[in-house]
Amino acid sequence: MAEQAEGTVVFGVFNETSGTESRVALTPDIVARLRKSGVTCLVEHGAGDAAEYTDADYIAAGAQVCDAETILEDAQALGFVDRPGEALISRMKPGTWVIGMLGSFTDNEYVETLEKAGVTAVAIERLPRQLSSAQSMDEMTSQNSVMGYKAALVAANAYGSFLPMMTTAAGTIRPAKVLILGAGIAGLQAIGTAKRLGAVVTAYDVRPASKDEVESLGAKFLDLGLDLSAGQGEGGYARALSAEEQAAQQAAVDEKAAGFDIIITTAKVPGRKPPVLLTERGVAGLHRGAVVVDCAASDLGGNVEGSTVGQIVTEDGVKVIGAPYLASEVATTASNLLSRNVADILTHFIVDGALAVRPDEELDQAMIVAGHKPLNAQKEA
Amino acid sequence: MAEQAEGTVVFGVFNETSGTESRVALTPDIVARLRKSGVTCLVEHGAGDAAEYTDADYIAAGAQVCDAETILEDAQALGFVDRPGEALISRMKPGTWVIGMLGSFTDNEYVETLEKAGVTAVAIERLPRQLSSAQSMDEMTSQNSVMGYKAALVAANAYGSFLPMMTTAAGTIRPAKVLILGAGIAGLQAIGTAKRLGAVVTAYDVRPASKDEVESLGAKFLDLGLDLSAGQGEGGYARALSAEEQAAQQAAVDEKAAGFDIIITTAKVPGRKPPVLLTERGVAGLHRGAVVVDCAASDLGGNVEGSTVGQIVTEDGVKVIGAPYLASEVATTASNLLSRNVADILTHFIVDGALAVRPDEELDQAMIVAGHKPLNAQKEA
Repeated sequence: MAEQAEGTVVFGVFNETSGTESRVALTPDIVARLRKSGVTCLVEHGAGDAAEYTDADYIAAGAQVCDAETILEDAQALGFVDRPGEALISRMKPGTWVIGMLGSFTDNEYVETLEKAGVTAVAIERLPRQLSSAQSMDEMTSQNSVMGYKAALVAANAYGSFLPMMTTAAGTIRPAKVLILGAGIAGLQAIGTAKRLGAVVTAYDVRPASKDEVESLGAKFLDLGLDLSAGQGEGGYARALSAEEQAAQQAAVDEKAAGFDIIITTAKVPGRKPPVLLTERGVAGLHRGAVVVDCAASDLGGNVEGSTVGQIVTEDGVKVIGAPYLASEVATTASNLLSRNVADILTHFIVDGALAVRPDEELDQAMIVAGHKPLNAQKEA
Repeated sequence: MAEQAEGTVVFGVFNETSGTESRVALTPDIVARLRKSGVTCLVEHGAGDAAEYTDADYIAAGAQVCDAETILEDAQALGFVDRPGEALISRMKPGTWVIGMLGSFTDNEYVETLEKAGVTAVAIERLPRQLSSAQSMDEMTSQNSVMGYKAALVAANAYGSFLPMMTTAAGTIRPAKVLILGAGIAGLQAIGTAKRLGAVVTAYDVRPASKDEVESLGAKFLDLGLDLSAGQGEGGYARALSAEEQAAQQAAVDEKAAGFDIIITTAKVPGRKPPVLLTERGVAGLHRGAVVVDCAASDLGGNVEGSTVGQIVTEDGVKVIGAPYLASEVATTASNLLSRNVADILTHFIVDGALAVRPDEELDQAMIVAGHKPLNAQKEA
């Protein structure tokens, strides 16, 4: 049994490091913060190594570094960057709390597994982001922000010319023209970063509200000459477009895309196949040396037709970079932000020194998908 | 024999593409410019491919795309990104002009090879950069400028946190602290780019004049508490420091370095072993996750002790990136600037429609190291 001198709730995180994951769900400075809230922290050996947080850092912050078995045995709540696999779930004690991006919107089978294991599952993807009390828990925002920043850097780094205008004795280099498709958190951060680097930035999103946001960052809003209003979906995410709208949007975007040097697509829709924002025809229209970064690339497809995870160069010399793991590639900061989000979710559920569900809390109703479900919990499709 | 309809001087460039070289010494827009000066351009097949300039682009601009043999046979002047190897020199016709970075300050044997081959060799590294007429020919400046830009991007991309300060609902991320060692053209461009990205930038150079330049870009000048004045060397390059000065500088830099997240070293001295600006002790003092980019890395050593070409991660988790080929990695723009420089050098030597040396020209005196050497040419050590 781990010591619980400081706290009544024991919280544990595992080493989730993999080829595509460098983040950790708890960072040392958050350990210190959680201790003040009466939480004892358990961290699996090496959990933070890939994000530059050592076991010694955790110990210095007051956490206990131990093996996975001890965490499963002693922790009442577990925090995840991703979500636990079924093998790990099968080893959890009933009553354990699981906090993570659980994919509950699309994976009912997984939610049933959690239910059968008797764990209380808090699905971060269901955070009611519009609540002001939820803002510091908004992992989608924090990680997409990191993703957008990194997407602009990756694009700039892959591009064979300057982003800023440069005036030299040998002549003037024109600034790069960057198009951001999808102006959510990631898109806005990509706009900001590309603008910092001196590019001329244009952006597009189907949500009408995004035009003001894009322009407030000093970028141009791409005029497709189409009416795709009422695109704002539930919870502030982009909704999926109808087939007709998609076709009209694609044709227009494909045509306009040809004028840009760099295109960054950021329309990830949580748990669903991402919408295509640039077809093969659009990619084919780009000039040799143009760079496309598809943040939604996956085995199921991405925002860019023909993109795959990793880099390809088309026959026409266009670099298409499928980059779904960009947040993980800025692991130190991404982990720190994510860790703050998870810790704030955890402490929300600590009532009088113990983990508890308050059925009248909107947050509890929205996020708990298995275990101590609030009586009036709504189950979405 | 290639057609010479437009010009009396025939200029040729080869395909110099290699694992570390993507640039080309002539780009299509410069072909068009040279045609107006009466120059016929020959380009080896595929020479521009790696820099995103196709054979078709060259033909459209009015160049002739051909094989190396035809260029050797027909061209009166040859332009190079690097310098021709001995095998290629042995195939050149006597009287051919060779324009490139010839390494003439340190490689006498190579210069003798050029001399024996009977070619007229124009050494770009000997450009009298202080002449206003030389500014548009200044390849060192144009390529170092590209290098500095890219060095900041590479560093930002390798760093696990944000460069800019970010204020989020989950807290504020402090901006990265970046130290640039060597504040020549590359260093100043690295300063500018890191500042664009929102980092807090400090720089250091042994030349006293650099303090004003650094501060004029809004960066801090690192105060080592040492007197290393009179560091301005010939031609505006940093001179090599004395052993004592180096030791004092290193000790101070090593100590100050510990406070930074990213260090970029840019002190390349043309044709010489680069000075060490950060010792192993300095690297050892950096925090886990810190990033060092050594633009002077080479087989002979770099600005950073222990750096190698490529990336290493020290036992203490510091990333040291040896990156001597950064200009080549921004191949499209780097080639375009370089091509303008080389073309302006070429046209300088065209007098009344033919290549000629004017012994009274300072530029000719300085740059011609073999062949039609001006009578009063000075031979440097």
